[in-house]
Amino acid sequence: MHVRTEASPHSRWFSLPLGAISVTDGLWRAKQETNRKVSLRHGYRQLERAGNFNNLRLAAEEGEGDYRSPVFMDSDIYKWLEAAALDLATVRDPEVEQMVEAATELIVAAQAEDGYLDSYFQVVGPEARWSDLDHGHELYCAGHFFEAAIAMKRATGDGRLLAVAQRLADYIDSVFGPGKRDGTPGHPEIELALVELYRETGERRYLDLAQYFVDQRGSGRMRGYRHYGAEYHQDHVPVRDAGAVVGHAVRQLYLTAGVTDLYLETGEDALHEAMQRLWHDMTAHKMHITAGLGARFTGESFGDPYELPADRCYCETCAAIANIMWNWRLLLATGEGRYADLLERSLYNGFLSGVSQDGARYFYVNPLQSRGGVERPEWYGCACCPPNVMRTIALVGHYAATVGDGGVQLHQYMASTVDTRSVDGPGAVLSVRTDYPWGGEVAIEVVETGGEPWPLSLRVPQWSPTPVVKVNGVEVTDAVAEDGYLTVRGAWQSGDVVSLSLGLEPRLTAPNPRVDAIRGSVCVERGPLVYAVESIDQQDGVDLLDVSVGLDVRMASTWEGDLLGGVVAVDIPAEVTSQGDWEGNLYLPPEARTGVSGETVLRAVPYYAWANRGAGTMRVWLPSRQK
Amino acid sequence: MHVRTEASPHSRWFSLPLGAISVTDGLWRAKQETNRKVSLRHGYRQLERAGNFNNLRLAAEEGEGDYRSPVFMDSDIYKWLEAAALDLATVRDPEVEQMVEAATELIVAAQAEDGYLDSYFQVVGPEARWSDLDHGHELYCAGHFFEAAIAMKRATGDGRLLAVAQRLADYIDSVFGPGKRDGTPGHPEIELALVELYRETGERRYLDLAQYFVDQRGSGRMRGYRHYGAEYHQDHVPVRDAGAVVGHAVRQLYLTAGVTDLYLETGEDALHEAMQRLWHDMTAHKMHITAGLGARFTGESFGDPYELPADRCYCETCAAIANIMWNWRLLLATGEGRYADLLERSLYNGFLSGVSQDGARYFYVNPLQSRGGVERPEWYGCACCPPNVMRTIALVGHYAATVGDGGVQLHQYMASTVDTRSVDGPGAVLSVRTDYPWGGEVAIEVVETGGEPWPLSLRVPQWSPTPVVKVNGVEVTDAVAEDGYLTVRGAWQSGDVVSLSLGLEPRLTAPNPRVDAIRGSVCVERGPLVYAVESIDQQDGVDLLDVSVGLDVRMASTWEGDLLGGVVAVDIPAEVTSQGDWEGNLYLPPEARTGVSGETVLRAVPYYAWANRGAGTMRVWLPSRQK
Repeated sequence: MHVRTEASPHSRWFSLPLGAISVTDGLWRAKQETNRKVSLRHGYRQLERAGNFNNLRLAAEEGEGDYRSPVFMDSDIYKWLEAAALDLATVRDPEVEQMVEAATELIVAAQAEDGYLDSYFQVVGPEARWSDLDHGHELYCAGHFFEAAIAMKRATGDGRLLAVAQRLADYIDSVFGPGKRDGTPGHPEIELALVELYRETGERRYLDLAQYFVDQRGSGRMRGYRHYGAEYHQDHVPVRDAGAVVGHAVRQLYLTAGVTDLYLETGEDALHEAMQRLWHDMTAHKMHITAGLGARFTGESFGDPYELPADRCYCETCAAIANIMWNWRLLLATGEGRYADLLERSLYNGFLSGVSQDGARYFYVNPLQSRGGVERPEWYGCACCPPNVMRTIALVGHYAATVGDGGVQLHQYMASTVDTRSVDGPGAVLSVRTDYPWGGEVAIEVVETGGEPWPLSLRVPQWSPTPVVKVNGVEVTDAVAEDGYLTVRGAWQSGDVVSLSLGLEPRLTAPNPRVDAIRGSVCVERGPLVYAVESIDQQDGVDLLDVSVGLDVRMASTWEGDLLGGVVAVDIPAEVTSQGDWEGNLYLPPEARTGVSGETVLRAVPYYAWANRGAGTMRVWLPSRQK
Repeated sequence: MHVRTEASPHSRWFSLPLGAISVTDGLWRAKQETNRKVSLRHGYRQLERAGNFNNLRLAAEEGEGDYRSPVFMDSDIYKWLEAAALDLATVRDPEVEQMVEAATELIVAAQAEDGYLDSYFQVVGPEARWSDLDHGHELYCAGHFFEAAIAMKRATGDGRLLAVAQRLADYIDSVFGPGKRDGTPGHPEIELALVELYRETGERRYLDLAQYFVDQRGSGRMRGYRHYGAEYHQDHVPVRDAGAVVGHAVRQLYLTAGVTDLYLETGEDALHEAMQRLWHDMTAHKMHITAGLGARFTGESFGDPYELPADRCYCETCAAIANIMWNWRLLLATGEGRYADLLERSLYNGFLSGVSQDGARYFYVNPLQSRGGVERPEWYGCACCPPNVMRTIALVGHYAATVGDGGVQLHQYMASTVDTRSVDGPGAVLSVRTDYPWGGEVAIEVVETGGEPWPLSLRVPQWSPTPVVKVNGVEVTDAVAEDGYLTVRGAWQSGDVVSLSLGLEPRLTAPNPRVDAIRGSVCVERGPLVYAVESIDQQDGVDLLDVSVGLDVRMASTWEGDLLGGVVAVDIPAEVTSQGDWEGNLYLPPEARTGVSGETVLRAVPYYAWANRGAGTMRVWLPSRQK
């Protein structure tokens, strides 16, 4: 998940090494602490309980035994291990270290003599290796393992898993490629992992193998799980010819992230242009306001353009994570703020809703409306999402800043320390103070700096049209605005403070009139947060089926420190209408009238925090009334 | 499918024997001819090609062989056979007779010594009989076989299959029941079939067995296919306690039809009250305007109340058929026109869309909006719908009339002859002349009648508020209006003509404001028909994503004899708006503006006729503008 692009020839901006950015306070610090103290431990127990670890034990013992399905159980371990490793880069929690050590020893023991590693095939069908690339998930599991091994090396210096990873990668490279076996994985993931393994080790073969797997796509050989077709596996079209995001959303976005990784190394325009077409299709036609992706349960897939239901959308947590990974790579390649904007939208909404406030329950599917009955379970039979959440939270600081163009860029505003000294650049250390996303003030103190002047670029989110930048309290009027960033060039000295003010007034947002499912509705946003109204917060007798909001509504924000771990709630004056003629009727002439109307004030909370207080009703999109 | 309730103690109105009503002209006559000349033959070929017949052959030979899945393949044969038999009641097509004879001989040969009949378990797992009631479909197949056997006996007098059916029923009765084996089928169907077998044979044990299967429900023992839960199988709640339609829509409605059949015989109020609760829940919360049922692909199931998406609804053709069957039984029990109204809505819309104009292609899923790419396939791996369509079309006359309350009731208006002489009642023969649903004039000529005066009841659809009834050209002002019927009592003589005029102006219909997915939209209806706009009929450059209709729109109807087998098309003045600010944007502030607007006239055709001219776009619900 963590990428290092400082040697990538087509990276405009460079990500920072693990540990170079630490989150020091605020929402993300709290999430990281819960992640460490609750989620990582919870995940370890669940991996034991669900049999994931036991599968590896069976592989290590070469014993026959009761393999616990599904086939990709190893990947849950690897994502958990990556999360733990990423977290160790910040805090050396001894219990986490013990768990990591146990998992490491198990993996080392489980690897086969020839380098192969996949407990399902080792235990259940040793003769069946690579016999079912469509559904077997061997290369998918390998990819997640590479990511975990790289994270371990970078976070702790422990190279045991990286050695296992290289043996596995070398073995895979001996099997697949030109003149060897044809094929490409039914679930993309290994592509981005191989590119990062190349970055970590310098072994060009890994990059070439990633390229090979990407180039193999589009044969139409894969028929798809059930009736889902080649699109499900991203085998319907050669990657360079792709024009639309389709099929299984997670597969689609793991692939695009890997392809952009390839582009960062190879600079092949055809790949980048394809990725930009897909990004446009996704953002213009197929994305929920939360940056949730995947309109359909069937095939966990993208729907048609403008098919964006609020209630039965899929919006898998893993798809939101894949979108974060992809946009990060696109940002590194281009320096365009729209990618950081979308990363932020996903991070604070479609992603963060994936985990409960207590850190021990997870959403796989993230609806934008619930008519009741929806809560996060503790774990899943297909448990891809929970450890994916854990590694994303552990790494969240990674997305805060880059260096490049001779300066430093800040992308995601969080209380943090950004230390750029270990990479080429201005040699600066910055201290960022903010209570974003609750407040819109960001103060960046220059703690250390090299001698030369350098530019500091600050992302201005698209929703903040009138940002104000000051240096040491004096407004800057000549900041350069480009591609979503305000850049201030300065001969910085220790103690200088650059401040950014982003307006955080609650605002209404409407959907494109082509979106049928939420026609005539608006939602409330504030800063990067999409808001939701939950039944539990409403006045007695107010049914969320019967509310509507005027387009001229005046909303109020209130900090509620005791609510949901501390959130800014938004109060929205609204109308409540009884059914009237409609009572018991689904369809009537348009002249039918609703009944008496009353007023209420709807209380909204950040979408990510919903479903933490029981299984009530919820809606993001509120029916609107013309003024 | 055909029911005879003249001996049912709780039937207020009595259905007529097979052959007593013949369709003589118009839409349904044309559909029946296509059904005979194309669909029945097509179905027979498909059953051969897909392996259904071969499965029975394997069972007959007691040979091991290659059973072709799914497990319920026999039921497709039985539904096809029932359709053919029902059709033979009207027209003795020699080729159909030959096909029926071949199928009959095969079934007779396939039955096991002890009466058991199910090719899957006979071929694949003889030892596994009844081992998987949840998913095995043995009792489901048996129910469909009983229906076919009864139809054969009633239509042709051939009792061979009925003898097989009784042996099978007796065998099942020897297995299940108090003091015997516990259990109830995972897919309801046998309940209604056992009640009809009781009606046909007088064997009370069959009724008792139906009652037993109904009473066994609600144990929660069935876990559901995949993760769908006990609701999927209708095992989540005892039938008498049910308050809402849930789970797999076809299972739910096959069960309710069977339960209402039971009520017709036993009069148990608790069952009838439960059915009325379910009917209310379905019609007030969970039914599409086409009478399509099942909002979700997942589990082919009902959704939450008001969850009624136009694009990704399921609306299985079989669910529409089940709804027709259920409402027919409710009508017979109660004499309330609302049930005949709903039967009509389903018949002309959600059901009839299930088959192509040429009779050789079928919808399983019936969406109310298509963004392109949707056409009817020729057959399905799970081919429940096509033969279900065939038997419904073959039997459509059945739903036209009943006797009871000393008179005759007309429910569905179609050009037909209604001969009531074989059942207790006024001994009347009526000739109905109409081009309904295209025109609203219905002329009923008394061809023969007994000596006594008797009441003639004419259903007045809920959408026709000002019907006019005349007798021999003179308006009747003292007709009694009750429960959706106008009743005229007369000392009828041969040659008397009663006429009914129903206004058939196109009308707009709006959805309950609680229905999110089609908020701010209207649809066009005319008489019993829901209309749809298809891209193929629109002016060049008009994208159905961009149209809207005023609530004061004046629409025009035109008979188009060459279009889609002859339909009344409706022209709808509408606005076409370009995207403007929205170009490339999914979400913007509500102040965002659409671009230039132009006018067009949308041409709409009956929903049932859509997707017969390629895979264009279609919508039933049109965005509306306030006046």
